[in-house]
Amino acid sequence: MGAQLIDGGVTTPAGFTAAGVYCGIKKPNPATNPLDLCLISSTGGPVPAAAVFTTNLAVAAPVIVSRDHLTRAGGLCAGAVVNSGCANACTGEAGMAVAKGMAAVAAQALGCSDEFIFVSSTGVIGVPLSLDKVTAGVTAAAAALSVDGGADATRAIMTTDPFPKSCAAVMDSPKGRVTVGGMTKGSGMIEPRMATMLGFLTTDAKVAPAVLQAALRRVCDETFNASTVDGECSTNDCVLLMASGASGVEITDASDPALIEPLRAVAGHLAREIVRGGEGATKLVTVRVTGAASLDDARLAARTICNSPLVKTAIHGADPNWGRLIAAAGRSGAHFVLDHASVRIGDIDLFVNGVPFDERAEAAATVLQQKQMAITVDLGTGGHDEATMWTCDFSAEYVKINAEYRT
Amino acid sequence: MGAQLIDGGVTTPAGFTAAGVYCGIKKPNPATNPLDLCLISSTGGPVPAAAVFTTNLAVAAPVIVSRDHLTRAGGLCAGAVVNSGCANACTGEAGMAVAKGMAAVAAQALGCSDEFIFVSSTGVIGVPLSLDKVTAGVTAAAAALSVDGGADATRAIMTTDPFPKSCAAVMDSPKGRVTVGGMTKGSGMIEPRMATMLGFLTTDAKVAPAVLQAALRRVCDETFNASTVDGECSTNDCVLLMASGASGVEITDASDPALIEPLRAVAGHLAREIVRGGEGATKLVTVRVTGAASLDDARLAARTICNSPLVKTAIHGADPNWGRLIAAAGRSGAHFVLDHASVRIGDIDLFVNGVPFDERAEAAATVLQQKQMAITVDLGTGGHDEATMWTCDFSAEYVKINAEYRT
Repeated sequence: MGAQLIDGGVTTPAGFTAAGVYCGIKKPNPATNPLDLCLISSTGGPVPAAAVFTTNLAVAAPVIVSRDHLTRAGGLCAGAVVNSGCANACTGEAGMAVAKGMAAVAAQALGCSDEFIFVSSTGVIGVPLSLDKVTAGVTAAAAALSVDGGADATRAIMTTDPFPKSCAAVMDSPKGRVTVGGMTKGSGMIEPRMATMLGFLTTDAKVAPAVLQAALRRVCDETFNASTVDGECSTNDCVLLMASGASGVEITDASDPALIEPLRAVAGHLAREIVRGGEGATKLVTVRVTGAASLDDARLAARTICNSPLVKTAIHGADPNWGRLIAAAGRSGAHFVLDHASVRIGDIDLFVNGVPFDERAEAAATVLQQKQMAITVDLGTGGHDEATMWTCDFSAEYVKINAEYRT
Repeated sequence: MGAQLIDGGVTTPAGFTAAGVYCGIKKPNPATNPLDLCLISSTGGPVPAAAVFTTNLAVAAPVIVSRDHLTRAGGLCAGAVVNSGCANACTGEAGMAVAKGMAAVAAQALGCSDEFIFVSSTGVIGVPLSLDKVTAGVTAAAAALSVDGGADATRAIMTTDPFPKSCAAVMDSPKGRVTVGGMTKGSGMIEPRMATMLGFLTTDAKVAPAVLQAALRRVCDETFNASTVDGECSTNDCVLLMASGASGVEITDASDPALIEPLRAVAGHLAREIVRGGEGATKLVTVRVTGAASLDDARLAARTICNSPLVKTAIHGADPNWGRLIAAAGRSGAHFVLDHASVRIGDIDLFVNGVPFDERAEAAATVLQQKQMAITVDLGTGGHDEATMWTCDFSAEYVKINAEYRT
């Protein structure tokens, strides 16, 4: 038993429709991806929802509005409106008015009160978002809402993402089948520390808002919050989870595997897809830190390794430069004992209890030439805590993308 | 009055000689920089010295040996031996024996006990250092010691540095003229957090070890520790300061401007030279954070901005993307009030009290096209604390250098 990952997205669980349209927020570029606004709708009106938001203090207007709406609505949500191409962040009072207007337009289209609408934006910071364009987009998207609209919705939230990211999972529990679907976007300014990512999840489970919130927070810590592209926690990060209840399977415990397992399967897959599609990324790296004196230490060392430019460039060049892994662990602030520390790349032990085995470097280089690999660093403290985190390599393409982002 | 920066190096203050030689530790490459070992000698035998070391827990053998020697010698030092091309880090017991052997060879050459010798290494981590090569190098360097040897010594400690870094400063105090000289190397794995850098400073002031140590620590916090290239604190960072007393100017107070001012002039210049010569760097950026609620907050925000890959790539592309500066400040952990925050690039106010002035973007882009620029971010808390830190831009060349470092 366990959750089974399947193709799908936010409309895979019963009770949801979606659409993605182009309304002129992005520069028109039919060659790549012209869509820039999506609508996700609960077909049964307001349903229980949970959300986690960025911890960046430079918080974007839509995050402020969505947080307020979800609180005022008592954890219920009827739909989400999301645009790409403009983050509506650092836009002052005018930006707040646009975020509220965006919710009002969507509420009218879906026939509910404003507070049941979740709004989200992604793209350039500090540029005004046109409410006229959003209004036209919402009108078009509302007319196009469909159970087949998940794929368009996914494309509509992309910015520099090299590919769309969505999936679903089913879980057959003794109480019946629960389905979870989701979509997300990257791909720079990605280190959703403590908070989480721009992601939209749906399920047909029947769950009260408080239980849903606890389950979402727990799963986010193990998935989205354990991923990084460039160590940058954005101003707009958020994940929304809506539960239609259409399956009739009632969840009353936030740790019930009937919900947690498919949720973790979807969120984990999407988190790794974000990293795999990170700006300029060519490799997906799983970093496991063991032998830590505490869980916090394990996470701190894993995070430091995953964000080290020297580690990430070495991986890009398939250089088994384990010294950089040790140097990153040593400066992380986690308890660390060099004489008992170890480094393993794939299943090649390059450094064991403080002793190098450089004759194995060639075998390790072969591992690093793959598209996916695992690296394990033992902190040598004798402790039994460990943490796993995902990162990507650091390429010249990342620099190119971000040096030319607005030109 | 004030310290005057002049051309020079570690042999500019009276009482010091130096030499740089090639002994086969680096791959021979006469086209670039063949030197790989240097010796700095106090001509009057052991003199007062002070040192600060890396806080990385994966500490290299020479750091352990030098720390022990300086303690055992009661803060006196007769000379330093430094090699490039091999860090002698993560090399276990064998590496410790080589570091001790390196000191013994140098002590014999300079005619003093081992504990009066400071040893230092820089280069690849985890590779054994050959004591035979070091011995040959020390013998050659000892024979070449001269007051004109500062330039060769500077070249001998370079790794990926694009240019040598040395300078001197003179300060005319009421008590007489004090001279300080120094040399340093970069250029990757540079963020000497809390500790400091690979740097060697000399002075002809007459100072007791404890006073010298206090003065060095204070100046390092304002110079080397306020610089970053890539946020990586190395396993081998250290700065040594030796005082010959040859000027006869006696310093008994660690805050005496007669010592502090020329020391700050030399250390500050060298710190900025390290950043300017950072791996792949094309620009030197001074980041000033104002309006902070505390000095710690100001430093935290400055450090986060200076290490942000998105900020550094935007500067590389001369894109006045102030949103990334605000996002970095907002995620830094420092107290931050978006509605009162401001960003200035050069003397162009792009974001004032939470309001963007994007019509000034073109003027700001012109500032960012220069080789040197200043960026000021006000955290908007109404506090009066501030901090200044130096960083460089992030180029595709950094990725290239570090993806191919060992190949």
